[in-house]
Amino acid sequence: MLDTTLPAPAAVTPDQRDRHALSMFRDPASVAVVGASDDPAKWGYWLARGALLGRDRREVFLVNRGGGTVLGAPAYRTLSELPTAPELVALCVPPASVGGVVDEALALGGRGFLGITAGVPDEDAIAGRIRAAGARLVGMNSLGIVDAGTDLQLAWGGFASGDIAIVSQSGQLGSEIAGLAARAGMGISRFVSIGNQTDVSAVELLDDLVGDEHTRVVALYLESFAGGADLIGTLARLREAGKHTLLLTVGASDASTRLAHSHTGSMTSAVDIVDAAVRAAGAVRVHTPGEVVEVARLLAWSEPPAGPRIGIIGDSGGQTGIAADVAAAANLDVAEFSSPLSTRLAALLPAGAACSNPVDLAGAGEQDLTSYLSVVQDLLDSEETDSVLLTGYFGSYSVDNPAHAAQEVDLVARMAAAARRVRKPFVVHSMVVHGPAVDAMREHGLPVYPHIETAIRAVSAATSLATTPRSPHVTATSGPALEGTGYVAAQEFLSGTGLRFPAGRVVRCEHDLAAVAELTAPYVLKASWLEHKSEAGGVRVGIADAEALRTEFTAMRARLGDGDYVVEEMDRRPDVVEVILGVRRDPDFGPVVLVGAGGTEAELHRDVAIEMAPVDRHTAHAMLRRLTSHPLLLGWRGRPAVDIEALVDLVVAVSEHAAAAPDVAEVEINPLRVGPDGALAVDALVVPAQA
Amino acid sequence: MLDTTLPAPAAVTPDQRDRHALSMFRDPASVAVVGASDDPAKWGYWLARGALLGRDRREVFLVNRGGGTVLGAPAYRTLSELPTAPELVALCVPPASVGGVVDEALALGGRGFLGITAGVPDEDAIAGRIRAAGARLVGMNSLGIVDAGTDLQLAWGGFASGDIAIVSQSGQLGSEIAGLAARAGMGISRFVSIGNQTDVSAVELLDDLVGDEHTRVVALYLESFAGGADLIGTLARLREAGKHTLLLTVGASDASTRLAHSHTGSMTSAVDIVDAAVRAAGAVRVHTPGEVVEVARLLAWSEPPAGPRIGIIGDSGGQTGIAADVAAAANLDVAEFSSPLSTRLAALLPAGAACSNPVDLAGAGEQDLTSYLSVVQDLLDSEETDSVLLTGYFGSYSVDNPAHAAQEVDLVARMAAAARRVRKPFVVHSMVVHGPAVDAMREHGLPVYPHIETAIRAVSAATSLATTPRSPHVTATSGPALEGTGYVAAQEFLSGTGLRFPAGRVVRCEHDLAAVAELTAPYVLKASWLEHKSEAGGVRVGIADAEALRTEFTAMRARLGDGDYVVEEMDRRPDVVEVILGVRRDPDFGPVVLVGAGGTEAELHRDVAIEMAPVDRHTAHAMLRRLTSHPLLLGWRGRPAVDIEALVDLVVAVSEHAAAAPDVAEVEINPLRVGPDGALAVDALVVPAQA
Repeated sequence: MLDTTLPAPAAVTPDQRDRHALSMFRDPASVAVVGASDDPAKWGYWLARGALLGRDRREVFLVNRGGGTVLGAPAYRTLSELPTAPELVALCVPPASVGGVVDEALALGGRGFLGITAGVPDEDAIAGRIRAAGARLVGMNSLGIVDAGTDLQLAWGGFASGDIAIVSQSGQLGSEIAGLAARAGMGISRFVSIGNQTDVSAVELLDDLVGDEHTRVVALYLESFAGGADLIGTLARLREAGKHTLLLTVGASDASTRLAHSHTGSMTSAVDIVDAAVRAAGAVRVHTPGEVVEVARLLAWSEPPAGPRIGIIGDSGGQTGIAADVAAAANLDVAEFSSPLSTRLAALLPAGAACSNPVDLAGAGEQDLTSYLSVVQDLLDSEETDSVLLTGYFGSYSVDNPAHAAQEVDLVARMAAAARRVRKPFVVHSMVVHGPAVDAMREHGLPVYPHIETAIRAVSAATSLATTPRSPHVTATSGPALEGTGYVAAQEFLSGTGLRFPAGRVVRCEHDLAAVAELTAPYVLKASWLEHKSEAGGVRVGIADAEALRTEFTAMRARLGDGDYVVEEMDRRPDVVEVILGVRRDPDFGPVVLVGAGGTEAELHRDVAIEMAPVDRHTAHAMLRRLTSHPLLLGWRGRPAVDIEALVDLVVAVSEHAAAAPDVAEVEINPLRVGPDGALAVDALVVPAQA
Repeated sequence: MLDTTLPAPAAVTPDQRDRHALSMFRDPASVAVVGASDDPAKWGYWLARGALLGRDRREVFLVNRGGGTVLGAPAYRTLSELPTAPELVALCVPPASVGGVVDEALALGGRGFLGITAGVPDEDAIAGRIRAAGARLVGMNSLGIVDAGTDLQLAWGGFASGDIAIVSQSGQLGSEIAGLAARAGMGISRFVSIGNQTDVSAVELLDDLVGDEHTRVVALYLESFAGGADLIGTLARLREAGKHTLLLTVGASDASTRLAHSHTGSMTSAVDIVDAAVRAAGAVRVHTPGEVVEVARLLAWSEPPAGPRIGIIGDSGGQTGIAADVAAAANLDVAEFSSPLSTRLAALLPAGAACSNPVDLAGAGEQDLTSYLSVVQDLLDSEETDSVLLTGYFGSYSVDNPAHAAQEVDLVARMAAAARRVRKPFVVHSMVVHGPAVDAMREHGLPVYPHIETAIRAVSAATSLATTPRSPHVTATSGPALEGTGYVAAQEFLSGTGLRFPAGRVVRCEHDLAAVAELTAPYVLKASWLEHKSEAGGVRVGIADAEALRTEFTAMRARLGDGDYVVEEMDRRPDVVEVILGVRRDPDFGPVVLVGAGGTEAELHRDVAIEMAPVDRHTAHAMLRRLTSHPLLLGWRGRPAVDIEALVDLVVAVSEHAAAAPDVAEVEINPLRVGPDGALAVDALVVPAQA
């Protein structure tokens, strides 16, 4: 019916089809920096300086209306003076001059523009002329572009070469990531500050990275998610190409939401919807530039952990205990080892060693350094761990006593080999930053961290990347379209999903009450057309008999006026868990499905799971498992378990049906009363899309 | 009646009274290292090496049974050969030799022993002989002692001098903190690895720090909290002496609890009770060694923030947005500025700047570097902030363009002066680690961090230190002592607290039911002596009339046998919030009071606040405000607010009464139904202390 979340091949834009459409922003044959300057306080200085670094690969022209030389190179007064037309033109001129420079360049046949200048008047019109000429614009208000593989550096500052691609809506934040990476001995493959995205969008630039052989990790900062559905598709393609995307965004707090609004004028997407989107794409949201670099360090070495079970090894009860607490707080699972594994470890270690996870060597390392290797190897080989962490003194032996250096360095090589063999993440937290063994870890590519929390944060974020991308394709479902609003229309709209409602009758006047005789008391009376029935006094429950019903109906109708009142049998099953199930259409990302603890008071705890809609049974099960209130479904305090399979069926069916209905903005079933014998919807609401 | 939480002066141990009792562990007149060695793989090497560093201040004797020289100094074969008796004897000999060395030293008049050796047989007996001779022992199994002020260094490794005192139950964890501090340009005033605490305890060593003029921050690692009540008193005294304690512990996860149990054989205290204890003492629990050093850096510069309101300034929308989200996640309050303050800021900044917190300079800094100072100064002077954070490029100007260096360095001096004047924490996150401006920040003592999350984590933890220590003194209360167990005994025990119960009657046989006629139906029937009534089928609610009551009573008695059944009027007030209120006596720390969301399902969300008991009204109010379900009390979704003052009265009264009853282990009132017209306890349980 519709395919709103992942673009089908036919929906791909022309630029995405042509993998070379944006090649002038990665490896132009020639570059002109217009506004080149000798003054390091000016952008024209930094772009000229960077451009000249690529002189061996391409023609570099510096343009300054004063002529003469800039940074020792001859400067042209205008683009028209250049011997050949530049493929890429970097715009560092004052705002009012940008339009003229662009027109001049287009006349010469320029294909790409990098707009550094901010506050350009008529920016949209200029971009329109660029597109009309078959050229493209990155910016305006970009902090620049760097491609390490082609010696293209058109940005403020210096950049180290590596495997992180940075695509950022905030140039300075991207620059911070690049700087942190360089300080950590890592570097970037590409850097694009996307600026205002007046022409080329973040999604296009990301798409252009899919085939980049130098990129292993994509660090993405976005504040706004227009075209979010396309973004999911692009991130999924990056993932399939072996590149992991780490997303930074804002909007997790009122303060950042307020700021983004004042900053870009746009509203941020709710972060829980952003999280659902990146989850579907096989990417992960991280929280700070520092975290980006830490996770990138891990991913440079290995694939993400296959799951959350981390084995922790240390030579100090205090350090391993702290590590276990930090890991648990980061949603990793420091699961107790099986008895066979513990026994095997105990055989390697002295009495007093802890062997059930975390493992505390209890002095074994001091007695015999190879104990470290034996235990690391055992935990790497075990099927009970998805990742292994070594914390503590290891790495310091060779610093405190040079006689230990050769052996410690040799152990590092053997640990690295063991980890590579089983292709399992192995990370080290060492008390020293430099020294023979720690330096050897870096040479072998082993991720080693100076703080336990950064080591664990990297494993935790990488664990979220273990899932393969999911394509929430929307397909046609049977069942009627939405007709009208209110409870009755919602019942009708949802009738094809298998959702059950209590037996009931529509009642418009006292005469209609006769039909209610077929129902079993006690009754519930509802003013079906109201959106917030309880707050408006539009619900009465526990009506004992026909006489009481008549009284209540008369009173409610006197209060609320004519309308479709509904009388229903009251669901009095014991051992029922109230759940909320909803679908809504996010303006950026498309339909999402939400399931969580129901009841008005449960709202306080925000115990909900959200995914891009529709979901399959596997994802629906995973959503329920994520809920804090999940134990209620399994049978809490001796109560029987509810029919989880029936609930999963409904999550799947409602997500499919609502996602496929473009005329529906929102569906909310609350409460959905789920018991051992199935689920009953006691209220439901469907909000039509704005015409 | 009792003073179980803070020792009254008379309860102070002799060692606490005598501030010089432990002076041999800080500034001994002479030190002997027994087991001194030339082998850097041995403890005897490191202790001898460290001891020799203090030769200008004290006599240092190295003892090695082989004689000759160690580290170039003459070595004695036995202690008896020394020219004078050593005041402090460091024991680095094999386990079996420790007893003999101790006896020899005691015969010579040794006053202090530092036991490095682990696994010493008869350790308790040796410690007994030491104490009997009027001497003291730190250890065994200590990693050493360092006092920077007196050049005392008896530990493995090297130490930088500074204002952090480390007292650690895990020597290696303490050593990690010292190493991280040194790498961060900070250092330690004292280091004590307390080892097994066979004689001298952590509390005594902490007490010994109260008067230490070099110490600003105490980094404390403990796994077990025996004598926890004394610990609270000591931490409060440290706080009153201007020293802030940062506690690290384990037990926040099953894994670390399992480990600690295997490690020390003791159970860890629940971390929420540890948190309550440190809160009462004006200290704070932190999570990693790295966090200790980050917070210490802030506290070296200023007092803790007076509250959670942080003003954030940056020159990038992305960076300030990320900072705002990280701050909110760390429980700081990035509160929107008042209109007058925003307007004042807007006057300083260009159009497009964000002025309502966070503040985004939007290019103002590049135009005029003094914009940074103006805004920083305004936020420091404002009563709307408790701390101020500057994030982003500042610090980089002088690195990227030396022409900016003088001005940027001057601005740093003026920012530092402004912050000192208002005595408000001012922290900086800069994109560069070194450079003229950042180096100047360090020279001025300004806390500057290379990652936004560490800057904010430091502010957040320091904010928890703003509260002054609270002395939960237990005093006698009126009311009967506990007589028996069960609901009826609980009602009686709690009768002096103002707690109300539904009108009810005890019923033991059918004849007693006549007395129930005075009560208003519907009724509730309870088997009052059962601890978990609902699970055992010992509660029936909503019994409509006397006849139904008789039927229910007969059935329940047939099932559960003879006993004190209670019939009560059923509380059917609408708009009631169910709360749990409890007091329990922690074996380490003494009585704590707990208040939280009631109902069995609310348990899942662990929405509870815990404090040392008793609490005053101020603390009780703060506990309620911390609850996620606090909005329910204020009137949720149009419902009326409950009588919070009545609830606060009960929290205070029950905490006082139960804390003062040494024969009571636990009180639990659940649910306590609180409505607009007050609170009614619908079930209560009192558990007597084990005789």
